[in-house]
Amino acid sequence: MRTTSALLIGAAIVGGVALLVRGPGGDAVGVSQAAPSGNPLDEIIQQRGLTPDEAEAALKTFVPPGKYDDFVMVTSGGHRGTIMLYGIPSMRLLKEIPVYAPDAWQGWGQGDEESAEVLKKGSWGDGLPTLTWGDLHHPQISLTNGKYDGEWIAATDKSSGRVAIVSMRDFKTKSIFKIPNMNSDHHGVFTDNSEYIIVSSFFPTPYAEANGYAPIEEYPRKYKGIVSFLRFDRQAGRIVPAESFQIELPPYFQDLSINGRGPSEGLFFINSMNVEMATGGDLEGKPPMEVAASQREMDYLHVIDWKKAAEVAKDATKTKVVNGMRVIPLSTVVAESLLYFVPESKSPHGVDLVPGGEYLAVSGKLDPHVSVYSVEKIKKAIAAGDFEGKDPFGVPILKYDDCIEAHIQVGLGPLHSVFDDQGNGYTSCFLDSTVVKWTLGPPYHPPEAAWKAVDKVSIHYNIGHLQAPGSNTRKPWGKYVVALNKWSVDRYPPLGPLHPQNLQLIDISGPKMRLLSDTPSIGEPHNSMMIPVEMLQAWTTYPEVGFDAMTMKRAANATLQGQEKIVRNGNTVTVNGTVLRSHYTPDIVRVKQGDKVVFNWTNVETARDATHGFGLQGYNVNLSIDPGATEEAAIVATKPGVYPYYCTEFCSALHMEFTGWLLVEPRK
Amino acid sequence: MRTTSALLIGAAIVGGVALLVRGPGGDAVGVSQAAPSGNPLDEIIQQRGLTPDEAEAALKTFVPPGKYDDFVMVTSGGHRGTIMLYGIPSMRLLKEIPVYAPDAWQGWGQGDEESAEVLKKGSWGDGLPTLTWGDLHHPQISLTNGKYDGEWIAATDKSSGRVAIVSMRDFKTKSIFKIPNMNSDHHGVFTDNSEYIIVSSFFPTPYAEANGYAPIEEYPRKYKGIVSFLRFDRQAGRIVPAESFQIELPPYFQDLSINGRGPSEGLFFINSMNVEMATGGDLEGKPPMEVAASQREMDYLHVIDWKKAAEVAKDATKTKVVNGMRVIPLSTVVAESLLYFVPESKSPHGVDLVPGGEYLAVSGKLDPHVSVYSVEKIKKAIAAGDFEGKDPFGVPILKYDDCIEAHIQVGLGPLHSVFDDQGNGYTSCFLDSTVVKWTLGPPYHPPEAAWKAVDKVSIHYNIGHLQAPGSNTRKPWGKYVVALNKWSVDRYPPLGPLHPQNLQLIDISGPKMRLLSDTPSIGEPHNSMMIPVEMLQAWTTYPEVGFDAMTMKRAANATLQGQEKIVRNGNTVTVNGTVLRSHYTPDIVRVKQGDKVVFNWTNVETARDATHGFGLQGYNVNLSIDPGATEEAAIVATKPGVYPYYCTEFCSALHMEFTGWLLVEPRK
Repeated sequence: MRTTSALLIGAAIVGGVALLVRGPGGDAVGVSQAAPSGNPLDEIIQQRGLTPDEAEAALKTFVPPGKYDDFVMVTSGGHRGTIMLYGIPSMRLLKEIPVYAPDAWQGWGQGDEESAEVLKKGSWGDGLPTLTWGDLHHPQISLTNGKYDGEWIAATDKSSGRVAIVSMRDFKTKSIFKIPNMNSDHHGVFTDNSEYIIVSSFFPTPYAEANGYAPIEEYPRKYKGIVSFLRFDRQAGRIVPAESFQIELPPYFQDLSINGRGPSEGLFFINSMNVEMATGGDLEGKPPMEVAASQREMDYLHVIDWKKAAEVAKDATKTKVVNGMRVIPLSTVVAESLLYFVPESKSPHGVDLVPGGEYLAVSGKLDPHVSVYSVEKIKKAIAAGDFEGKDPFGVPILKYDDCIEAHIQVGLGPLHSVFDDQGNGYTSCFLDSTVVKWTLGPPYHPPEAAWKAVDKVSIHYNIGHLQAPGSNTRKPWGKYVVALNKWSVDRYPPLGPLHPQNLQLIDISGPKMRLLSDTPSIGEPHNSMMIPVEMLQAWTTYPEVGFDAMTMKRAANATLQGQEKIVRNGNTVTVNGTVLRSHYTPDIVRVKQGDKVVFNWTNVETARDATHGFGLQGYNVNLSIDPGATEEAAIVATKPGVYPYYCTEFCSALHMEFTGWLLVEPRK
Repeated sequence: MRTTSALLIGAAIVGGVALLVRGPGGDAVGVSQAAPSGNPLDEIIQQRGLTPDEAEAALKTFVPPGKYDDFVMVTSGGHRGTIMLYGIPSMRLLKEIPVYAPDAWQGWGQGDEESAEVLKKGSWGDGLPTLTWGDLHHPQISLTNGKYDGEWIAATDKSSGRVAIVSMRDFKTKSIFKIPNMNSDHHGVFTDNSEYIIVSSFFPTPYAEANGYAPIEEYPRKYKGIVSFLRFDRQAGRIVPAESFQIELPPYFQDLSINGRGPSEGLFFINSMNVEMATGGDLEGKPPMEVAASQREMDYLHVIDWKKAAEVAKDATKTKVVNGMRVIPLSTVVAESLLYFVPESKSPHGVDLVPGGEYLAVSGKLDPHVSVYSVEKIKKAIAAGDFEGKDPFGVPILKYDDCIEAHIQVGLGPLHSVFDDQGNGYTSCFLDSTVVKWTLGPPYHPPEAAWKAVDKVSIHYNIGHLQAPGSNTRKPWGKYVVALNKWSVDRYPPLGPLHPQNLQLIDISGPKMRLLSDTPSIGEPHNSMMIPVEMLQAWTTYPEVGFDAMTMKRAANATLQGQEKIVRNGNTVTVNGTVLRSHYTPDIVRVKQGDKVVFNWTNVETARDATHGFGLQGYNVNLSIDPGATEEAAIVATKPGVYPYYCTEFCSALHMEFTGWLLVEPRK
């Protein structure tokens, strides 16, 4: 702990005021004596019982009113189906972006026709329900030359095998693509110029069998893993299936992945678990998954020559088309030498690539080391063709010792590693509840300083991912690590049996890591990326009045002021209206029971922050109409009555008068 | 601004390091010269360019890792349909409680049978859709002896005329009650021992007409306001309609309200707007609502003798039953002298009661004053029977001058007032963007110090409500005011056209108010209540294994370890299973296409934070199963295939293995 001279002086001259310091559980855990010293800061420090470390953390994390954070952390909301944006170092939640789940406030999936269509098209179809949730795990910022470009976010859905695209212009979701032939994923990454988003499946499925079904007893033969190379149209913010391809993989659980760069360019790496091909059956007399999938010592790091695979995918004789996607079958994968395995410690959680692309870090969670693989050694071993054998599907397995560069002992339950701009790695240890800092080898550090654990900080509790600005790209910024901790236990006042998860901000700018702050989460902040606030290029209003956020063009149903009208066409009544502080035009809509009513509202304002709402009573409609935007809702007026509508945003002093009436006359 | 001697010394001896201070827009707004002074705090202050005020604010608001905030602020999420819990002074978002809208993370309305039923029963029925949103404006903490008791939260829905009940044991929603005969509300308050929740309508409707319909041209005659006295069963956390009653009101827009205490006990106060009975019609050649509802100088503060009304409600000859609710018609209200009007400045936003119940503060938003009414004077004027006239419905109107106690000039657009524990009021001014502090009269301050504006602080921007701990109860705590600001404009880095709203924490512990921090919001933080963290009595796990959160009793479908089974009954397959780190029992479920599958999962853990999930791929199901809880989901297996399920909470080192398989065999 550091102390300040001013504080010591303050402490020396004070006395008389008893102070309680509240600990977990609300108990008073310490009593200190203090009184005014004449120095306002020291007085506050004394009054609030802050330690010198805590006072420093306060000053390091506070972002004064009206000033901006240094970084924005783009974080997944996990099974909340959203993306969260936090400011760093304040750790204030700046925004939540609805993606797979509706958000009534933002009108996403809440009566708005276009977002309803995105959610519907992004579901599985074939009679299965429209999904209003997803398990959003790994938001990725698009890349140009291997660095963040601040244009798009791609976000995969572990629960469903989907990828959503969010624009960083308006931070709204533009599309959700259900990936054919894979029903789950865990992770997706952009290639260095965002040509592709590469997504692997987690759970193998019998995707190519009749009805997509095969008994679980036929798992090894008929179930398959998939990795998808999804062509990304960065103008439209959409996936182009016709230019995408898939590679069939053995039925292991393919997990996190990373795309090569520099010496590893053209290669794609996926780690895996359950090479035992266990399928559970605990009520049928078999061991549960957790036991059966932990029998062997090693799983396989997948090394895919994806540039070569892209060429093979163009050859119709070597591929098949399944559910509209071009697939390279596993037999072709083996025949064309597209895939190699490298043994990796059992059940790894992450495969991470150093900034220059020379080394891969893998941590098997049952092994207290980080295993560092040399890309050069892997390439040499492939070239030499000296394998330790093949897996049951014929995939060659490289020799572990041929590929390994270093082992660093970090502690129990190592999961993921991130990198700073000073040649250091930081690994999360789930069981130890620590973050361990270690040094990279050449060219980052000379051999004598390489591959050493140099610092450790305790976190609270059960850290999963951790993140640092720009880690796993060509351009890390360092400065901070955020620990994304699964359990908070006693870190917050009890607010029911569902406890928040805990985000901990760690200062990595000095030689020793310093824990700065705790922030509770809503949702599951699975993983994140951090981008300097200067790189953001978001719109503050839409670029023109009558803008369609989904197509990012002028809306066909936009209405300008003075052009408002109500049009009846058979049983459909279309309201082409405008919103403007502080009224709707029209503010009376008269229909008959059974009519379909379509509301097209254009917010004709151009002032920043002048968002208006359209809440329709009794109906499941709340639109959020940003300045310049046109939004559409449609209802069927099934029941006669009087249904007021009103602006759900408190937009002006005359907000309470910002109302209208939908009058539904009974059919005689 | 204050400076510290240490800081001045630091500044005197430093030099040489150029520092940028980032302002709104990301521009560098100032450059200062600084270098290490040897005092770590001063170094940080210099490096980060903090002013002395900002450094103080940092130290006043920082809650160190692992320590607790002093207060929990229970805040509405507005049209997000949720309640937010913030810690004060850190302003960290501790939890979001889903109420009217689903939350996939918490499994609320996300496949769970019971929450789906709450949302359905809480909708309007009669062929109208099940609502998945609400406009939650005014969360209220239940009272015992006029003080917070930390047991329940009631939350009204402006968009729909509903009241939801949330338990403060588990911070989950227990019931949503659609209030008959009123299709909107804005506000509801507990009586001093939570016998009733009193809720008034905002939009009048022709509730008693055939089909609930009348042309808008018959508005003055057929449309009515309503105030509901909803009997609250504080054991069950539910409304008891049979013991509730309603009072019919003229078709003004009844707005916020407050229940009397002390000298005002037995009276209920509602302010109103639109006594002009304007109905808009801007596309039909009439003035818009905002103009037509602002024609007169005064609206009417409603004074209701509700204890007397409760007696009248027992008399079947004086009441009618409409849609299952006992209603006192307006004619009876007048005949029984249950309602009086007091003129109030046009279009007021709030009516607030001082801690002892002696005075009411009302602010007409077009009048730069707070009007303070004396309850004693109102009672005297009623007793004297000296009225200035009657409204068109026969309601007597008291004379303004007979009732008024004081006017305090506060500035433009005054909306709401709150009170501290030192006899001061604080009023939000929307147009001026200020909070103004003023003194109360006797017994809080002697006459010479009474009713004076004594301080003012600028906020950013467009403040709506403001709140202070325990304001509008018998027991305020003072210390902080939070300004709930509608617009943030340039206070945060642009993240698209939808900007956050802005919560500002103000220190009111000294003679001058001090703005401490800015916090962006998700949703619309309409209003709040703040309770000391010590008063919380929440569960950290459920009290027994197999607990049903909805009934708060042991669940009929609970399963204990060793009792797991799969039962087929015709085409229904029921899975009675358990979850426990790190597996489901069963982890294989075999059904046939077309079967209904009911999953009952009991979390048999008793460890704090050991929540597990049940995410079923392809289906719209994600359960959150807290320690001890039993949750149920049901699906129809319409499509053959393989549907993995997995724990969506990262609950253990073997979390990735926490999976199972729903196998849907095709019908031959």
